[in-house]
Amino acid sequence: MKAIADRIQEGDRLALARLITAIENDQGDYQEILDELYPLTGKAHVIGVTGPPGAGKSTLVNCLARELKQRKGKGAKIGIIAVDPSSPFTGGALLGDRVRMGFHAIDADIFIRSMASRGALGGIALATDNTALAMDAAGYDPILIETVGAGQSEVEIASLAHTTIVVEAPGLGDDVQAAKAGLLEIADILVVNKAEKPAADTTVASLERMLALGEELKEKQLGVTWHVPLVKTSAIDCEGIEDLTDHVLAHHQFLHESGAWEKCDLLRLSKQVHHLLRESLFGSWKAQLDQKRYNDLMVEVMQHQISPHQAAQILLNEER
Amino acid sequence: MKAIADRIQEGDRLALARLITAIENDQGDYQEILDELYPLTGKAHVIGVTGPPGAGKSTLVNCLARELKQRKGKGAKIGIIAVDPSSPFTGGALLGDRVRMGFHAIDADIFIRSMASRGALGGIALATDNTALAMDAAGYDPILIETVGAGQSEVEIASLAHTTIVVEAPGLGDDVQAAKAGLLEIADILVVNKAEKPAADTTVASLERMLALGEELKEKQLGVTWHVPLVKTSAIDCEGIEDLTDHVLAHHQFLHESGAWEKCDLLRLSKQVHHLLRESLFGSWKAQLDQKRYNDLMVEVMQHQISPHQAAQILLNEER
Repeated sequence: MKAIADRIQEGDRLALARLITAIENDQGDYQEILDELYPLTGKAHVIGVTGPPGAGKSTLVNCLARELKQRKGKGAKIGIIAVDPSSPFTGGALLGDRVRMGFHAIDADIFIRSMASRGALGGIALATDNTALAMDAAGYDPILIETVGAGQSEVEIASLAHTTIVVEAPGLGDDVQAAKAGLLEIADILVVNKAEKPAADTTVASLERMLALGEELKEKQLGVTWHVPLVKTSAIDCEGIEDLTDHVLAHHQFLHESGAWEKCDLLRLSKQVHHLLRESLFGSWKAQLDQKRYNDLMVEVMQHQISPHQAAQILLNEER
Repeated sequence: MKAIADRIQEGDRLALARLITAIENDQGDYQEILDELYPLTGKAHVIGVTGPPGAGKSTLVNCLARELKQRKGKGAKIGIIAVDPSSPFTGGALLGDRVRMGFHAIDADIFIRSMASRGALGGIALATDNTALAMDAAGYDPILIETVGAGQSEVEIASLAHTTIVVEAPGLGDDVQAAKAGLLEIADILVVNKAEKPAADTTVASLERMLALGEELKEKQLGVTWHVPLVKTSAIDCEGIEDLTDHVLAHHQFLHESGAWEKCDLLRLSKQVHHLLRESLFGSWKAQLDQKRYNDLMVEVMQHQISPHQAAQILLNEER
């Protein structure tokens, strides 16, 4: 066990890959290895990239990783985590890996990992966080986390990230949809990708209006001084990526200077501790549950004699 | 309190609207009212409608509600719940309500409610479930739940629904994206909307291939006999909606005949009881926590001396 943690510190990619597999499958003694690696973490800049399907996030992440690698110079190592809901139709994460491998497979300093969301809600967020932790300990910095979709999951993932890039593209539904998706409010940097499309200017204009409105709200609420930039990219040719990278590095600097980096860490770590406590308390309680009594109550719930809330109250009161 | 539950049973729309507002804001004694209403619930057919942004879900839901109302005849009442992530940019749910009101505002037998996801992850699923419960008690059947996006949230919402309709449309990113979104595997009925578009046939063909693959897997795993139909619609003119409605009603019948309705209920209700227990146990533990000790440990976590996992273990061990 000691050996694995040591090998990860020394940059052994195979050891890192095995640890992440254990994290993803929730198998083995990975938690002890993470505990051992923990003092080495906290350095990596975690960058979330999110947006609706079809916005071109994967392509953008590939360009951004390459540009960041160039700026950071020799010895820099970049981590990429792609969070895809699993699908029995495509083999899920595997296909994603193969698609994106074309770009970076030759670059030993970029480590790419796709995560399938096999587990329950919340499980994927924890596994992603632990994977980022493992990459951090192994010296990867920055770590890019790409999330697919426009639901709750990426709002959750965004809480892991120091910098959140929201990617939109023309023609993915109207502007109401973009606002609906609730993504704008989590953006530190807003990207309109596929800027080569004729409709891109309309998308940019309407997002600019929404941004202006949002800035006003944020200033009133938080006194925040970060001005969310809107960047146009054409990721298919990696155009606009230099501009985007400038903003990413500027945000990194802003986080450190403003103290937001520490606030972000405290929030994230408190959430983790709470999640672990919640699961552990429930686990202990469940282990000493009278299963027959529980089953009887569930029958009453099924027959609509008592509500789930009443069943939970009864179980909790009887225990004491 | 008694009075409100009575008024809801009698079909008072204002009383229902107020209860839902209390549920959504997690305020007041709504839980007691829900407990009281619980014996009246369990009748409504809950239909989830999900898919990526821009697929035309809202329009489709409107058409489907109108057609279902017609089939069910006089006295039938249809509920619609739209789950939108909140946004300070648009006023979130409010705008959605106004957009869709045009269609049904005159119809007193269709009750529409937009839910904003203000709370934590999981909070929106619970609020949606409770809202469906309230509508069920008030005699609304079926209840249509529309979710925006393609992330984890609608997979969660789908577990509330007896019948899940997944809506795709041509031109929303490639087929890999559709599979990635992990939506196909939760579909009971698959819809290709915007069938009037030239690219629709390509979308249909590729989805049919994926469906065939998925059916094989499902048959092997579960011995399921429901054959997922693929329906083409053009919701802007409510075309194809009669066909879709036939499939919805056929699935309803299938659920009852196969016993899947009860299985679905048991799963949903067990989840609710577990969720309530987890929150309640954590709440009790938190109430008797030594806050100073907790803060000290969090400082150690922040300084990367101990991991969140180690902090949680220490807190749990000290309590005993």
